[in-house]
Amino acid sequence: MKYPTRINRTDKNISYSNRGMTLENELNETNSFYLINNIAVIHKKPTPITITKVDYPSRIEAVIKEGYFKTPSTTDYNGIYKGKYIDFEAKETKSNIFPLSNIHSHQIEHLKKIIEHGGISFLIVRFTSKNKTFLLETKNFIKFLNEEKRKSIPYDFFLENAYQIKDKYNPRIDYLEIIDNLYFKKSKGE
Amino acid sequence: MKYPTRINRTDKNISYSNRGMTLENELNETNSFYLINNIAVIHKKPTPITITKVDYPSRIEAVIKEGYFKTPSTTDYNGIYKGKYIDFEAKETKSNIFPLSNIHSHQIEHLKKIIEHGGISFLIVRFTSKNKTFLLETKNFIKFLNEEKRKSIPYDFFLENAYQIKDKYNPRIDYLEIIDNLYFKKSKGE
Repeated sequence: MKYPTRINRTDKNISYSNRGMTLENELNETNSFYLINNIAVIHKKPTPITITKVDYPSRIEAVIKEGYFKTPSTTDYNGIYKGKYIDFEAKETKSNIFPLSNIHSHQIEHLKKIIEHGGISFLIVRFTSKNKTFLLETKNFIKFLNEEKRKSIPYDFFLENAYQIKDKYNPRIDYLEIIDNLYFKKSKGE
Repeated sequence: MKYPTRINRTDKNISYSNRGMTLENELNETNSFYLINNIAVIHKKPTPITITKVDYPSRIEAVIKEGYFKTPSTTDYNGIYKGKYIDFEAKETKSNIFPLSNIHSHQIEHLKKIIEHGGISFLIVRFTSKNKTFLLETKNFIKFLNEEKRKSIPYDFFLENAYQIKDKYNPRIDYLEIIDNLYFKKSKGE
């Protein structure tokens, strides 16, 4: 389970220099925009790591000399928007389908629990080949998992069951605009 | 700023073997109890680390060979309870006062922002010498910071302005019992 996690992060770092900003970097910029403008407080969680060796070369510094990536038990992003708890996982794929191996079973359970407890949870998925980014609500993600036995979600499922996040200059990935329409507009509000 | 962070964690590990469970371990057990019993979904965030060197001894494993602790920009714990966003920082001190150096300015700003956005934020502070653990609401913590110029919070301030969390067998530190009384009981609810 550690392998995909590590690989994803490596890909992101490589692609950052190769072809503009990664989804992670754009989301960090977007969340900074939300924070600075007092719109929402949403942060990316640190990468979960097991530290097995630490050196202290000086009194004011600790250096991790050995550690391992852990499989995340929750999602990467959470926070608060308009009093509501927000929780999501973000992934990008170079493929024309979204491999479910990108999302760990712990994370699926977590996304479900957030809904059960009255929060808002979803996936943000970018298809780099198509340069399109989608917000997929957990309920529609679960619908696919329950109805389909496939190991990946086809692109068309996103076109039909997710919301495309339009690219903007600032904020770059304004996913809260979609959350607004889904949960806070009187006409569509839950 | 990295030094206190690292030291705290080291202290905790040492004290864990010396004198029973640390506050961190008891909170993890408590949050597991809340999760398993479907009471709340509250997790500790991973320790923020900057990874500067990773080796790949085998195709299925990545080993971090160099990394550094970062000063946290948010708190250690957050999640959802009864539809409300919950956010807190937990610290234990061996002293009879609570040194404010335990809480970074970023974290104070974060706790304030959570309130502004309609969430519930607080500190959990344990005085190991007195074997007492308190829940201090952000509003009372801010009150102290605004009114006092001291570099530490005296124990008496907690007696007068915080809520003692009684030790239980399971959950060990039932801080949500206090949150219930403060926010969800009709008589006292906001």
